[in-house]
Amino acid sequence: MDRVYNFSAGPSMLPEAVLRKAQSELLNQAGTGMSVMEMSHRSPAFEDIHTRALASLRRLMQVPDNYRILFVQGGASQQFAAVALNLMHTNRKADYIISGNFAQAAYKEAARYGQARIAATSQEENFSRIPDLNAAQFDPQADYLHITTNNTIFGTQYNTLPQSGAVPLVGDMSSNILGKRYNVADFGLIYAGAQKNIAPAGLTIVIVREDLIGHAQSITPTMLDYAVHAKADSLYNTPPCWCIYIAGLVFEHLEALGGVDAMEQLNIAKAALLYDFLDDSRLFNATARREDRSIMNVCFTLPTQELTDAFLKQTKARGLVSLKGHRLVGGIRASIYNAMPPEGVQALVACMKDFEAAQA
Amino acid sequence: MDRVYNFSAGPSMLPEAVLRKAQSELLNQAGTGMSVMEMSHRSPAFEDIHTRALASLRRLMQVPDNYRILFVQGGASQQFAAVALNLMHTNRKADYIISGNFAQAAYKEAARYGQARIAATSQEENFSRIPDLNAAQFDPQADYLHITTNNTIFGTQYNTLPQSGAVPLVGDMSSNILGKRYNVADFGLIYAGAQKNIAPAGLTIVIVREDLIGHAQSITPTMLDYAVHAKADSLYNTPPCWCIYIAGLVFEHLEALGGVDAMEQLNIAKAALLYDFLDDSRLFNATARREDRSIMNVCFTLPTQELTDAFLKQTKARGLVSLKGHRLVGGIRASIYNAMPPEGVQALVACMKDFEAAQA
Repeated sequence: MDRVYNFSAGPSMLPEAVLRKAQSELLNQAGTGMSVMEMSHRSPAFEDIHTRALASLRRLMQVPDNYRILFVQGGASQQFAAVALNLMHTNRKADYIISGNFAQAAYKEAARYGQARIAATSQEENFSRIPDLNAAQFDPQADYLHITTNNTIFGTQYNTLPQSGAVPLVGDMSSNILGKRYNVADFGLIYAGAQKNIAPAGLTIVIVREDLIGHAQSITPTMLDYAVHAKADSLYNTPPCWCIYIAGLVFEHLEALGGVDAMEQLNIAKAALLYDFLDDSRLFNATARREDRSIMNVCFTLPTQELTDAFLKQTKARGLVSLKGHRLVGGIRASIYNAMPPEGVQALVACMKDFEAAQA
Repeated sequence: MDRVYNFSAGPSMLPEAVLRKAQSELLNQAGTGMSVMEMSHRSPAFEDIHTRALASLRRLMQVPDNYRILFVQGGASQQFAAVALNLMHTNRKADYIISGNFAQAAYKEAARYGQARIAATSQEENFSRIPDLNAAQFDPQADYLHITTNNTIFGTQYNTLPQSGAVPLVGDMSSNILGKRYNVADFGLIYAGAQKNIAPAGLTIVIVREDLIGHAQSITPTMLDYAVHAKADSLYNTPPCWCIYIAGLVFEHLEALGGVDAMEQLNIAKAALLYDFLDDSRLFNATARREDRSIMNVCFTLPTQELTDAFLKQTKARGLVSLKGHRLVGGIRASIYNAMPPEGVQALVACMKDFEAAQA
């Protein structure tokens, strides 16, 4: 089988042009005679890769000068602790909006290091929507307000950010970073695992306003202290060099395509292909509330498990893979991050159309 | 320039055969139509990669059945905290032997989570030797005794392990794992960053005796708790899949070459080429005490900085790179891990010979 259309929720597709470039220079990076995988992280060649990746991400997200970008390890799960340990320092209180499973996990971890409070939740509706947001619900004494900007499992996204006033907003942007424009200045801190929209798993991006750095609780492990990474420019110890290299290639690829705004328009168009079909379908049913629909993860169901299985079999035969929904929602989940070409979505819609017609 | 001989202390050389295999299947892994970098960590294809890597490492190191192997992130630096948080649970005391900078850093981090004690140190001799070990120095009440089996910066290694009795021995094996045979059963826990002898940076190996799992201090971040990773078989969250894949290729490559014992013999022979020349040289001077010399990192000096610079210039011209010593030792450091071919060491010795002759 040649390349498939891979709808995996993460790790997920990377741009083929990036993979081909990585392949071509895998044994000899820019005339150094070695692979990026073999390169000292203190070498000028890697410093160039690192610096360029940082600069490109800063341009793409229009990161203001008073924010630092850190490249760390451990995924969003490690940031669940790091955020609490670094930011819960004044009143040791934080508000969490629970819009899905990862938001829930972030909240639980924070509750170990201070007073974490559920400010709003949509759990009763199985996270099929973003919770209702009302500024009055938020604690003005909280050290931060935490949200998950896109909920991978449930296929919802924030289109409007909560108004947290002077309380810093913290966003887990793992599943829609660079896929949808957010204003970085609206956040005190953004973090994201790279494996959905940026790079292979093993790299975590942290974008943090400078005044929030340097207040870590005394029990914070050194490797979870933002001040340590900020001071060392993410080179306190050996970083995940290969992931940073691929991230840099992806960033430059996105810039060449027009940046985040262009990607967002493309992603809206890709998602619309699916949602428009779903809205007209008598067989397939979109699960997320219309106003909160994610342009990254499109979740839908079929009436029975039998039909779901039959549909998955048909997609697979057409080279459309990793479409099985998360067990908490069931059905189908089509993850269509930046690297999923429109042709992949068109092929999926065609498959849905054919499948529905065959049932009639 | 074609491929160079890269003497970097880490990240460092990978076997060229492994790189070529990774290159050949970069866009399409085993007929899946996708790269390992794009593959769901819950997919059967990745599960196969993961399981095979674990099994191969278990065979290579002859890991007993009552030890778990964990694939985590964050490097040895993160393990400095994790070891203390997980193992300092009974008497909250630990002994550290300080044989170099990383041992020092491990000790400092542990001191934040309990009573860490310096049981022995060779700092006064600028870590040019392994400290004298005398069982009587060790605290029988310590929760563990920590050593660094190979000291990358200073070029020393443990040839005899300290006798810690019932106190579990913990080894940071980052720079000689799989390069020298140690008996895993002599340790309670072994950890290693992968980027010197195993895989690209971003993967950390933990090998831990089962009875030491499950006692983490209550403040331990979830991602630093060995019990969490052991229970989830290192899939609690998305692991560094690409690094695990390359590690697996390296493990199988080493098995094909005869395993750790064969590599150790080869490494001894490679190191002897250098040490024998150094012992005869009137220009170059080996810095580590003879009995403690590392077979992974060979450190030596020249009489002046001018000569050092001139020598580095000559090596570079011959495609022998990353030979500059760490600032704490100065001079030259030749890191000759498993993936450094004997031809690379021979070329370095030839260069030294020529350089010395030219000075005469």
